Order: sequence, then C-alpha cells, then structure tokens
Amino acid sequence: MDALKIKKIGIDTYKENVAYMPAGCEICKSQGFDAQSKIEIHYNERSILAILNMTENGLVQTGEIGLSDAAFRHLGAPEGAGVRLSHPNPLSSTDLIRNKLDGDSLTKEHFLAIIRDVLAFRYSNIELTAFVIACSKQHLNEEEILYLTEAMIETGERINWGLPLVLDKHCIGGVPGNRTTMIVVPIIAAFGLPIPKTSSRAITSPSGTADAMETVANVQLSLEQMKSLVHQEKACIAWGGSLYLAPVDDILISVERPLNLDSEGQMVASILSKKRAAGSNRLILDIPVGIHTKARSQEDGRRLTRLFEQIGEKIGMKVRAVLTDGSQPVGRGIGPYLEAQDVLQILRREPEAPLDLREKSLLLAGELLEFSGEVEKCKGKAMAQEILDSGKALKKFQRIVEKQGGQKKLSAAPFQADQISPAAGKVISIHNQKIAKVAKLAGAPQDSRAGVYLHAKMGDKVQKGQAIYTIFAETEEQLRFSIQYAQANPDTVVVEA
Amino acid sequence: MDALKIKKIGIDTYKENVAYMPAGCEICKSQGFDAQSKIEIHYNERSILAILNMTENGLVQTGEIGLSDAAFRHLGAPEGAGVRLSHPNPLSSTDLIRNKLDGDSLTKEHFLAIIRDVLAFRYSNIELTAFVIACSKQHLNEEEILYLTEAMIETGERINWGLPLVLDKHCIGGVPGNRTTMIVVPIIAAFGLPIPKTSSRAITSPSGTADAMETVANVQLSLEQMKSLVHQEKACIAWGGSLYLAPVDDILISVERPLNLDSEGQMVASILSKKRAAGSNRLILDIPVGIHTKARSQEDGRRLTRLFEQIGEKIGMKVRAVLTDGSQPVGRGIGPYLEAQDVLQILRREPEAPLDLREKSLLLAGELLEFSGEVEKCKGKAMAQEILDSGKALKKFQRIVEKQGGQKKLSAAPFQADQISPAAGKVISIHNQKIAKVAKLAGAPQDSRAGVYLHAKMGDKVQKGQAIYTIFAETEEQLRFSIQYAQANPDTVVVEA
Repeated sequence: MDALKIKKIGIDTYKENVAYMPAGCEICKSQGFDAQSKIEIHYNERSILAILNMTENGLVQTGEIGLSDAAFRHLGAPEGAGVRLSHPNPLSSTDLIRNKLDGDSLTKEHFLAIIRDVLAFRYSNIELTAFVIACSKQHLNEEEILYLTEAMIETGERINWGLPLVLDKHCIGGVPGNRTTMIVVPIIAAFGLPIPKTSSRAITSPSGTADAMETVANVQLSLEQMKSLVHQEKACIAWGGSLYLAPVDDILISVERPLNLDSEGQMVASILSKKRAAGSNRLILDIPVGIHTKARSQEDGRRLTRLFEQIGEKIGMKVRAVLTDGSQPVGRGIGPYLEAQDVLQILRREPEAPLDLREKSLLLAGELLEFSGEVEKCKGKAMAQEILDSGKALKKFQRIVEKQGGQKKLSAAPFQADQISPAAGKVISIHNQKIAKVAKLAGAPQDSRAGVYLHAKMGDKVQKGQAIYTIFAETEEQLRFSIQYAQANPDTVVVEA
Repeated sequence: MDALKIKKIGIDTYKENVAYMPAGCEICKSQGFDAQSKIEIHYNERSILAILNMTENGLVQTGEIGLSDAAFRHLGAPEGAGVRLSHPNPLSSTDLIRNKLDGDSLTKEHFLAIIRDVLAFRYSNIELTAFVIACSKQHLNEEEILYLTEAMIETGERINWGLPLVLDKHCIGGVPGNRTTMIVVPIIAAFGLPIPKTSSRAITSPSGTADAMETVANVQLSLEQMKSLVHQEKACIAWGGSLYLAPVDDILISVERPLNLDSEGQMVASILSKKRAAGSNRLILDIPVGIHTKARSQEDGRRLTRLFEQIGEKIGMKVRAVLTDGSQPVGRGIGPYLEAQDVLQILRREPEAPLDLREKSLLLAGELLEFSGEVEKCKGKAMAQEILDSGKALKKFQRIVEKQGGQKKLSAAPFQADQISPAAGKVISIHNQKIAKVAKLAGAPQDSRAGVYLHAKMGDKVQKGQAIYTIFAETEEQLRFSIQYAQANPDTVVVEA
C-alpha cells in the first residue's frame, strides 16, 4: 500500500483522535474501513489509533489523510509526512475491562496495562467509558483502589523535592468559592514549613485555585521555577497541569464528566496519585459535607476519610481529613477574580473580609501545622491566626506573587446586575450547583472577572428589594444568559419571610 | 442570538451527530461552548443534540454551522435553513442509568424513557456505552429483560399479518455459513404455513441472510410487497432493516460491537423484540453450542433456552430453542454468494450439496412443522425431507425469488487462492471467528462474491498439497490481505498428521 500524506485539517475534537478519508477511496474499500472504523496510523516507529470519518467535500484528496488537531499532536509527524494505515491489533487490555465488568478483580499489572494503552491514546471514548464504569462506585475494592492509585502514579512524572517534610492541602470539591489554599499556603510558608502547591484549573466549577491565583500572578511555572521558589520562600502556588503528574487522570475525566458518575474509588485514586506524584508526604484533606457535595452525610464523610487515610498510608503519604460545612458557598466571591479578592481582603485584614472563609482557612492551616508535628496539638489554629493577624502571611503571599511574575491589577467586570430579594426575610438556602451555574453562564472561569458576588449568606436578614447577589460579566449577552437562568431557578437562593 | 445557516459539510461520522463551528466564534464564546460540548440545535419545532467540533480551516464560516451527515439527516432541515443553538436540558433518563449502575432495578417506564431519548439521538456515545454496560451480563434480572424487550417493541413499528399462526426462525449467530433460513422458509411455505421472514444484514459476520438472499433476489421490500408475497406464496425473505422494527437495537449495537460485550439480557431483548414486532407468534431458535459461539457449553445453551422461552411466553410468542453443533462452520461457503450457492445446491438436490447444512435445515424445518401443531410429533423432519426431495421446496424458492425481483446471475469472484494443507492428515479444527475474518478481509459481505469456500471440514482426510479452502476476492490486494492473515494464523484450520 502506498503511503498517505498527512494533512492537518484544523478540526478540534478535544482529546479524540479522528482521521478523515475521502468516501469511496480505494484503501478504505480494500481494507474494509468505514465511518467509525478504528484504524492504526503508522509514522516511522510510532503509531496512534484513530476513529475514521469519511468526507465528501474535497477537504481530503485521494492520497491524503486528514487528522484532527488531537490526532496530529499525538502522532507527532510533520504535515505532509507519509503514513501507512493498518487494522489495529486488538487491545488485550480491553479484555481486562470485560473481566472486571464480569466481577473479576484487577491486579496492579492489569491497571498498568490499561493505563498505558489509555495514555498511548489507543482507547476510544466507548472503551474509556467502559473502564470508568467498571471502576465506578461499588465496583472497586480497597485493594484495587490502591493498585489503581499506584498505577496512575507510575505512569507519570514524580517530583522529588529532596526534603523530609513536604506539606500539602486539597479539597475534594463541590463548594463554590472556598479559596482557602491561597490563605493556607502563605501561613504555612511564613511559619517556615515547605508547601509547594500544585493546583488544578476548574473542571466543572466556576474557578479552580489555579484560575484564581492566575488573576494576581503567573501560575504556569516550570519545575525549576517551582524548586527555586520553594527553596527561597518555602512555597509556590502553581498550575499542576503541565507537569505530567498522574496524566491518565485528565483523560479519564473527559468521559467521567459527561456521565456525572459518582465514583469514590476513582476520586480517591485521582487525588492521592496526583498529590503523591507531586512529592507530598503530609496531606490535609478538606471534605465538605452537604446535600449537594460529594459527601452527603457525616457517614459518607467518615467513610471517605477512612478510605483516603488508609490508601494514603499504603503509598507512603500521611493523610488527615477534615469534615467541613458544605451547605453553602464559602466566602462571597464565585469566579477567579472575585475569589482572589476575598483572599486578598482576608490577608490584608480588611474589615469587610468574609469571616467564614477566614475561619475555615485558619482551621485548615492549624490542622496542617499540628499534623506536621512542629506545633503542639490544639495550638495550631492560634498559631495560624497569629501569623495571619501579624501580617506575616500577607507579606509571604506578596513575595510568592512577586516571584511568580508580579501582581496583576484587575478591576471588576463591566457588566453587572443585582439579583434582588423579592420580599423581606431571611436567606435559608443557597444551592451550590445552581449558584455555580449562574457564575459559569456569566463567563467564569474563561472570563476571569466574571462570576457572582454574594451580599448575603444563609441566616442573613434581607430587606425587600435588597441585592442578594451581583452577577459580573464581560458581555451584555452573557449577563443576560446568566440572569435568565437565575430567574428560571428561584431555588438558587431562597429567602423565607 | 441570530440564526445560523446550516451547511452540510459532507463528513460521515456513522451514527453520531457532530456539529462544526469556527474556532473562536462569538456564539460559542458567549455560550461557553467548546470542542466536545454537547449542544442542542433547534429548527422550527424540531431539535437534535450534537457534539461540537471546532474548525479552523474555513470549512465553516462565521454565521454558519456545519453538520455531519448523520446530524443533517436527523435534524431534517434543508441546507441553508436557519437554526438556533442552546445548552441542552439535562437528560433525566441518564439519571436512571446511574441508578441502575448503583444497583437499582429499572421499570418498563424507565426503559421507555431511555429508549425514547436514544431514538431521538439525544445520547452521546459515552452515554450509550453507559446504558449498554448497565444492561450487560449479570446486571439485568429476568423482569428487567422483559421490560427492556417490551420497551424496544413499543418504540418501533409492529407488523400485523392478520393471521392466527405466523412462523419464524432465528439463529443467535456465531457460526459462519449456516444459511439454513433460505432452505427452511421454502419448506415451511411449501407445506402451506405462513413464514414471512425478515432477516438482517451482517453486523460482524461475513454474511447475513439478507446479504446472501440479495445475491439471487431483491430484499428491500416494502411492507405491502411483503404482505402480497405472504398472501400468494406464504413466505418472503426480506431485509428487515427498513421496517423500523425495534429500531433502538441498531443504535445500541453501534457501541456494543466495539466493546465485544457478552450481554445475554440484551441479546434476548434484541432478538425477541425484533421477532415480536415483525408479527411472529411461533419462533424456532437455533442456538449453536461451541467454544467460539455465544453458548459455550450445553449448560449455557440450556440457560439461554429457558430465558428465551420464558420471556417469549410473556410477550405472547411461543419460542422453542434447538441446541445445535457450533464447533465449525455449517456448509462450505462463507460469504453472501458462496453461501447462496450452498443453498441452491441443496434445494436442487445436487450430489455435491453440503450434507451438514442440508441435515441442519431439515432438523429446524421439522421442529418448526411440529411446533406449528400441524404435523405430528416426531414426524416433522421426515415431512420436511419429503418436501425438499420432491422438488417442492425448490419450486417454492424459485417463485419467491421471482416475485422478489427475479433470479440474478452471478459467477465466482475473479481473484482466487487455494490454501494448501502442509501435510497429509485429518482436519481437526476450524476456528469460526478466524475463518470468518479470512472471508471478511477478502471483502465479504460488501463484495458479495468474496469469501471462503471450504473443501474439507472437521474429520475429513487431506493429502499434502491438497486445497483445504479457497479464498475469493474482487481485487488482488484484498486477496493478498486475506492470505496474509490466514498464513499468520495457522490455527484457522488445523490439520493433524
């Protein structure tokens, strides 16, 4: 068979490898390839698997093969290079998924085989979904969660800080706002303990820590920059996404997200593998408990705590979980810029700083200080408060920001709309997911200044006509989308007379 | 938001709805749409869901939206028509899948809700996969299989023949060749009982009954044509694919196939729903037993028998299963034309006609005659043989063929290669899937004359250098692919000295 010339045709399919061939081409006919066939594309010693689409529009000519952006990136061949096609060898690792679905247990070698094929982009979305479901909720036993975690660590990079004690904190998510990391990290570092923080961007939420930090500093740091910062300041707050830590996680998330599957084993493996690969050995875990979070009850929270602590122990990382209040957003801002403003108000000890976010940050920082063994039991929180109130935490944060590319000056987004209380009364509930959706429709996290600012929280009294929250957006249209959703969902914030 | 103009961009994605928008377009930015987002496309009162791909190649201009062939077909709007986009409402039926994965049982209403969304093309491949896995092997209880079967029937067309007795036969598959239907149907019809046969094309095999029948007659019949044939001849052998019988099955198969999942509940629901919707009320089921078929042991076969018979009873159809030998192909031809030649040899009572296919067809026809109540117990097979040997079955077949558009004259495919026995000995095994793959690589079923002709079957003695089987292909290249595979897989046919 003659070689086909690669054409990058400029179609972005996200992570999926798609190849495009002209309908009725001889190669497809002779090989029996059709739309949605899985084909293997060979370039020198490398190869990728791709799903085939047939084209009729002259987009791809006879003798060419079009590649989606992802396929082009993954194959790594220059445009115009010659490639050959073949039927892919059956993936033996998908047999393991079938066995797992039939009730078998998987070993660490099994998980490694699957993850290596996933990382080589040999799985279609259909097969990825099968793996994610095979691992969902009730299907992984504790041993399997450990094996999955280890396999996720071993198939990526690992950071070695060369330090005996490396602290970390993480929140399992589900609560908007809640930007404690940007307060905890400078407190711990100001105390003198190393806490090299790698954070993620938002996946389904209006902001991740990396998004909020990015409104005041650069977060795309190289490993060398991070090491230098930790050497000088004991801390950094960087985006972890470019470090190839437990890289399979991002691919699994691409199918977990649309399914909205509740998979404890996978969540535990995902979090612990990323933290261990990032070189941490003492992790404080924030587990918000509330009806719209991942731990719906104290019982759920305790089960997760045990799971995290036990698996953590086995991979050489001490984990302490803290169950926190997940009934409403923490802080007032929701969206990267607005959340960073909450953080700055607290670090600057401004009178209007949100108390709940301050209290929760002090609690977590205190727990972490005690967990390090450097501060006596029951004295952590007081120590954290002393560091915050003395201004040392602010100074530390400013030095970290400066060394991460300096303070950016942003002002509020131009389009704003107040959501007004229809009657006098008391705020009795704020729906975490719905208020997050309001912020996302307004543009968060892509537009960093977009989001929601809460003027009232649960228990606060409001007057008729008083603004309960303000929506911020970069365009009038996004503001309108967001308002429409808020008005169509009156249970976003409920006021009772 | 202004309307976007539809552009059919000539990309065939098989069944998946894909929409293409220019990267960085304002509508996507303002709505937060990105590559792989699920969007809803509205045209007048109709709407479809589609996965978004972003383009950079000028394929789609600002103000336009490109649609894949499937999306264009499903939306049903003319090119250039104006459409609007929105965020799709969350599918409530996917919650049911999550519940099922968590161990809940589903009711008939649940299955109906899911199937209606699937048929409206509201499911992505990820969600379809989740449903298929939720229903796989051990996950459906007998009640759920019944509900799924009923829901599959009720969401499609149903044929009413206006007859008290409507016979049918079906094979659950896994054995190449095995073209019994084209012999059983004329025997039953010549006896005088109605057997309006709707058959499928090959899904993963080298030929379905519809493919083989198509080499001698037209199989794309309208319901009116079928009814007229049944009125005049008691029988037809038509392709069932255009009749919208249990239509969700085809969509589910599009994700079941790549996963190669072993799902008894789904197989039972798939077969029984199609047969019931086709108006049958007495069904003989051929269940081949063998290590490379769906029933690997007699025990498997008996379990399937019970399941088919019980579910059949509950939907008003009497089912009788016959366990048959699935250890090797039945007949000599594999591929549409070659299988039809086997059938014609048997109907014409030619001396070289394959005995195993003849015997099996008589067994099934005899069982069906007894099952109808019109022939005494133990006398069915003799009656079937009498009809075949008297030439009545041939005459009936010729009349059916004539009324289905007349006999086509085909000759053998031009490129042929004999596979030679490396030594003298006895054929001790023929691998069903591997010999099927040889036939498929040669071009079957797309090229109707391509395939494999077996000169020796299990137990036959062969000389060194004797042809064990011949490969037929339309092109030299396909012949070469097929030979290559056969040579790389010597366990396709094993000769022992």
